[in-house]
Amino acid sequence: MKLVSFQVRTPVGTFTRIGALHGASIVDLNMAHARRLTDQGETQPRRLADAQVPATMLEFLEGGPAATDAARRAFDYVVGYDSSVTGPAGETIVYDPASVRLTAPLPNPSSLRDFIAFEEHIAATSKRRGQPIPPEWYKAPVYYKGNHRTIVGPDHELRWPLNTHKLDYELELACIIGRKGIDIAERDAANYIAGYTIMNDFSARDIQFQEMACRLGPAKGKDFATAIGPCIVTPDDIQDLAALRMIARINGDIWSEGRFGTIHWSFSHMIEHVSRGEFLYPGDLFGSGTVGGGCGLELDRYLKPGDVVELEIQPIGILRTTIAAQDERSTGRS
Amino acid sequence: MKLVSFQVRTPVGTFTRIGALHGASIVDLNMAHARRLTDQGETQPRRLADAQVPATMLEFLEGGPAATDAARRAFDYVVGYDSSVTGPAGETIVYDPASVRLTAPLPNPSSLRDFIAFEEHIAATSKRRGQPIPPEWYKAPVYYKGNHRTIVGPDHELRWPLNTHKLDYELELACIIGRKGIDIAERDAANYIAGYTIMNDFSARDIQFQEMACRLGPAKGKDFATAIGPCIVTPDDIQDLAALRMIARINGDIWSEGRFGTIHWSFSHMIEHVSRGEFLYPGDLFGSGTVGGGCGLELDRYLKPGDVVELEIQPIGILRTTIAAQDERSTGRS
Repeated sequence: MKLVSFQVRTPVGTFTRIGALHGASIVDLNMAHARRLTDQGETQPRRLADAQVPATMLEFLEGGPAATDAARRAFDYVVGYDSSVTGPAGETIVYDPASVRLTAPLPNPSSLRDFIAFEEHIAATSKRRGQPIPPEWYKAPVYYKGNHRTIVGPDHELRWPLNTHKLDYELELACIIGRKGIDIAERDAANYIAGYTIMNDFSARDIQFQEMACRLGPAKGKDFATAIGPCIVTPDDIQDLAALRMIARINGDIWSEGRFGTIHWSFSHMIEHVSRGEFLYPGDLFGSGTVGGGCGLELDRYLKPGDVVELEIQPIGILRTTIAAQDERSTGRS
Repeated sequence: MKLVSFQVRTPVGTFTRIGALHGASIVDLNMAHARRLTDQGETQPRRLADAQVPATMLEFLEGGPAATDAARRAFDYVVGYDSSVTGPAGETIVYDPASVRLTAPLPNPSSLRDFIAFEEHIAATSKRRGQPIPPEWYKAPVYYKGNHRTIVGPDHELRWPLNTHKLDYELELACIIGRKGIDIAERDAANYIAGYTIMNDFSARDIQFQEMACRLGPAKGKDFATAIGPCIVTPDDIQDLAALRMIARINGDIWSEGRFGTIHWSFSHMIEHVSRGEFLYPGDLFGSGTVGGGCGLELDRYLKPGDVVELEIQPIGILRTTIAAQDERSTGRS
């Protein structure tokens, strides 16, 4: 499944719900499940659906494999219906994407860890400092913790952050944790992954490097925004992770191109390392780090107001962000 | 007020609730407010109390100054009663601490940022690397983001983390954010602080330094546990922050002693810096960083199984942690 979060505006408020893409449509998974339960004779289909296939992504992920299995059965059930299928009391199940707004598929991750797992990227950034790759990099997958409260979704307009003169993108694949666990062995780690999405770890390089001089992880240089989306693809829908092509386009021009298989530390390695003596939770977000050549820093080219940044990794899709035009830059708010 | 979170075991489950210390007793603030509302003639006192003075700390903090004011009035109201005061339906309001278990006052911070704000500490740790204080340290209050999911409370028994040979404590004061805000000026920042607590940023130095060689913030070297408590003291109950004495005792021996006033970057500076272009939320936790001399690293002395670590900052109290005895070390779980 390709899972999305979308907002529906109604006279009684705006609701954020999860769906699965079906061709050009979005299927509301919670409502699809309520339909299926109704047809099975359940007397409280909405109440049971809310418990079994929660309508929001974090709560859905907390439901673990049972929620995903129920959602998949509900999806298969309603797409077999004719297109007029509705919920138990006539609610909408199949949405035209033009009638709703996609948010980040997981708008509120439990936490955000971002790794440096591609050798080509650490080699390039180390070289810029006139240094070799630190030998420690080969000992364990290193990471910093990002800001899990500044997640933005597809087609977001990013206001110019802070006073940076070196605004940059980072082309990454991310995985989302789907089960609570501790001391997870590498061989079991794949069972803890709920799905994959594209991640753009926006970076203000001038601010970041000032911070890293004190040997603490980047903070202000990264924390203003991280984009994820447009959807979360469940592992069964990605045949070969290593074969994924990763592309970054700025205003339609390809700046970066790579292949996920060039990664040195796998997501399973990361999960084993992080979970040692420390619980992982559903909704934890792991960024792979930048693929080799996958940022402006490696090219000495930076973003400017008005730029359109597109990160493409199929079958996930294209994660598009527009840098707000110059006249909004003066507000200083991200 | 001195705010605590405490657990009450009942036949229908364990409930975590907030209270305020009154002498040797704990006053349940949500229930105290329900009592006051009842006496004012409210027909739904529990429902209204849950909205105005939520029974759990994060939700209480999200209530902002209005919740704190209501809690304070409720506290003053019930301590004026005789000791037999009960809730609307005979519920307990005044607890004997021996009948409940204190947890971390805020068991689930929204996020955790830990600074290096004491010049003496950065000078000592830089010197150990044979380097001067990085000039960048004087430009802005630098920090890393800790693990907000591994918070432990007072009188916690800490299992030996990972395979460290250099387990260390860090003696810190922390502030808790009480209001949502962005681009907060230093002069307004004090209005965003809900209170102060003691923080022990436990550190596995050998693991931490390996991670920092890659110039990312510490992760596994810090993320296994952070202790806070025993209570959160509201700002009105601390006359002079600068005058606070900070003491660390290991098995009763003083290893560290300092004064908060030696800090270089104030909490107001930190709030101004972090909130630039980035929202702060109620329940965000800011650690001051280690006071000068406030950790074993500066003394080249480390913790061992069975040690009792006490951090004392009055009027907050003593935050005590016991390092589990050797035989539990083999589990490898924190």
